[in-house]
Amino acid sequence: MLHTVIMAGGSGTRFWPASRARRPKQFLTLLGGRSLIQRSWDRCRLLTPPERCWVVTGEAHVELVREHLPELPAKNLLVEPAPRNTAPAIGLAALHIRESDPDATMAVFPSDHLIDPFDRFVLAIRAAEAALVREPDSLILFGIRPTFPSTGFGYIEAGESAPSSTGATPAAPAMVARPVASFREKPDRPTAETFLASGRFLWNSGIFVWRAARLMDLLAAHEPEMAAGLERIRETGDRAAAIRTEFPSLRSISIDYAVLEREAPSARVIAAEFEWDDVGSWEALARRIAADPEGNRTAGPHIGIETSNCLVQTEGDHLVATIGVENLLIVHSPDATLVARRDDEAGMKRLIEQLRARGLDRYL
Amino acid sequence: MLHTVIMAGGSGTRFWPASRARRPKQFLTLLGGRSLIQRSWDRCRLLTPPERCWVVTGEAHVELVREHLPELPAKNLLVEPAPRNTAPAIGLAALHIRESDPDATMAVFPSDHLIDPFDRFVLAIRAAEAALVREPDSLILFGIRPTFPSTGFGYIEAGESAPSSTGATPAAPAMVARPVASFREKPDRPTAETFLASGRFLWNSGIFVWRAARLMDLLAAHEPEMAAGLERIRETGDRAAAIRTEFPSLRSISIDYAVLEREAPSARVIAAEFEWDDVGSWEALARRIAADPEGNRTAGPHIGIETSNCLVQTEGDHLVATIGVENLLIVHSPDATLVARRDDEAGMKRLIEQLRARGLDRYL
Repeated sequence: MLHTVIMAGGSGTRFWPASRARRPKQFLTLLGGRSLIQRSWDRCRLLTPPERCWVVTGEAHVELVREHLPELPAKNLLVEPAPRNTAPAIGLAALHIRESDPDATMAVFPSDHLIDPFDRFVLAIRAAEAALVREPDSLILFGIRPTFPSTGFGYIEAGESAPSSTGATPAAPAMVARPVASFREKPDRPTAETFLASGRFLWNSGIFVWRAARLMDLLAAHEPEMAAGLERIRETGDRAAAIRTEFPSLRSISIDYAVLEREAPSARVIAAEFEWDDVGSWEALARRIAADPEGNRTAGPHIGIETSNCLVQTEGDHLVATIGVENLLIVHSPDATLVARRDDEAGMKRLIEQLRARGLDRYL
Repeated sequence: MLHTVIMAGGSGTRFWPASRARRPKQFLTLLGGRSLIQRSWDRCRLLTPPERCWVVTGEAHVELVREHLPELPAKNLLVEPAPRNTAPAIGLAALHIRESDPDATMAVFPSDHLIDPFDRFVLAIRAAEAALVREPDSLILFGIRPTFPSTGFGYIEAGESAPSSTGATPAAPAMVARPVASFREKPDRPTAETFLASGRFLWNSGIFVWRAARLMDLLAAHEPEMAAGLERIRETGDRAAAIRTEFPSLRSISIDYAVLEREAPSARVIAAEFEWDDVGSWEALARRIAADPEGNRTAGPHIGIETSNCLVQTEGDHLVATIGVENLLIVHSPDATLVARRDDEAGMKRLIEQLRARGLDRYL
């Protein structure tokens, strides 16, 4: 049976002041309507009933998860007492899923990405399940066809079509699970341009599908100490106490380094046909919002007089009014407002540093 | 005995979004610390005890006055059921003051001006009282020596030193109450420059000192219907009910037109030696706030990265952060935020019009 896992441990300051230490990006309603984690939940619910949806999050965000996802069964909310990157978090989820269903397949998703349309997404996951029927030990990844030479994403180099273990031809050619020729870190610009031109490279979406038992076996093989720690969690009667004791000492490492790169021959990549965006910055978000005739992109109440090319984000009924300005990013949150020249990432970093340096952590 | 009257009936949108229909300028803490009406109260309290301080305000702002001025005796809060400009409001105050003290002198002040230092202000009012001893029927005004050719203020043309009725030389030459040669409306720029060059013209501060009984007599002479209405208020047992019935039908007219211009021979002007500002706009406010090395003027928490010549006003602990911007006016209020190119009064008017046109009166 398929289980879905929403990875909601993220934090970050790139959406300051909308995102905060106590309310990271996945809990934001960046485009109006439902929050990113709620949209992730809606996608999972197209694949599995609530009892087979799992969420991994940090202790600080348990209440927010409950508030955003009231349908989530209490036992399916897995809490990291300390952030240890993705390998221990996925290991913890795999442990619980295998326990409830030894033959389970698990699909793992970030909680803070935008994906559209949902039906294409469902078809892609179904294609991965089909590929696992043919090759039960494979690790399925989803690659996004690049639309520009991004230096902000990791890339997957797709190999020739996977030799099917049964010799059968895949039913849906576009959804073929192909071998992975190589994994590539975020490239520099010239390399990214080469990647784009070659047509062989896909953005790594951070979405994975594999059998829970297979993942546990691979953790045992490549990260035996982590696997032993997870085993102690499994064996202890007081599960919550065991997680609190064991989890923080697990090695902090991403699933990419811990397993995927070491098991590249098992990795398969499906070129996904849905639109995908990790919305990693205000500018990335701006691309998802339609512009008005003056080039303004707004989420929330805004009135502009002689205003052009501004990105305005406000919460609830709070009104932002602008007069005679252009190319500004304006973000209102309940206790802080940002007014910035657009696309000044360095300035944003300096701002966050200054808040820290001045002891203004309450605004972070 | 001296009584003081704070005129707190004002409204307006020039400090939007800080000032609102339900919270006009006099209730704002524009420079941190105490609100403008509280500063006005503090000045009055240097002149009179609370039982001789009076406040006239609109029905919508009674609660705000009580909140800002807890020391004000309930009976000294006079409520206008409808705004009728300054003559009826001052008449209503004069009626109450004369009732409690037939020989009373009343000093009338706007609630939303900045005056500094307070001791000079007190000396000026004392000089007016002294002038009234010599000339009990005079109407004393306070003129401010112009520092620039303002087109936003009314002017008073001072005549030659008043011939003292007793022939005595005034004790403090600088505080002489001189006759008024003429009253002038807000001038155009060339006229304002002539006024400034002549040295004879003073800005009309809107501060008046006169005997309450004299003012009532002059209203009876020049505005008999208004005086009759006030008389009916005086005679009726249920004072509050009488005000509700009579006040709204009083003629809406300023004290300047109703009395001062018609009694110009009785008018005297004292060139005040305090600093005065009616803070009629955000730019006027900016002049009262010291600039940091980058030229930013801020009231409330602000952090600027590559930010210059900005005026930032925020309330409470709300933080405004700016990156890479200059010459902006940024005002945060609980339900609306303004980001505007500085000194764009036309844009501000258009904004207010748009809010009205779009039915967004809740933001006004």
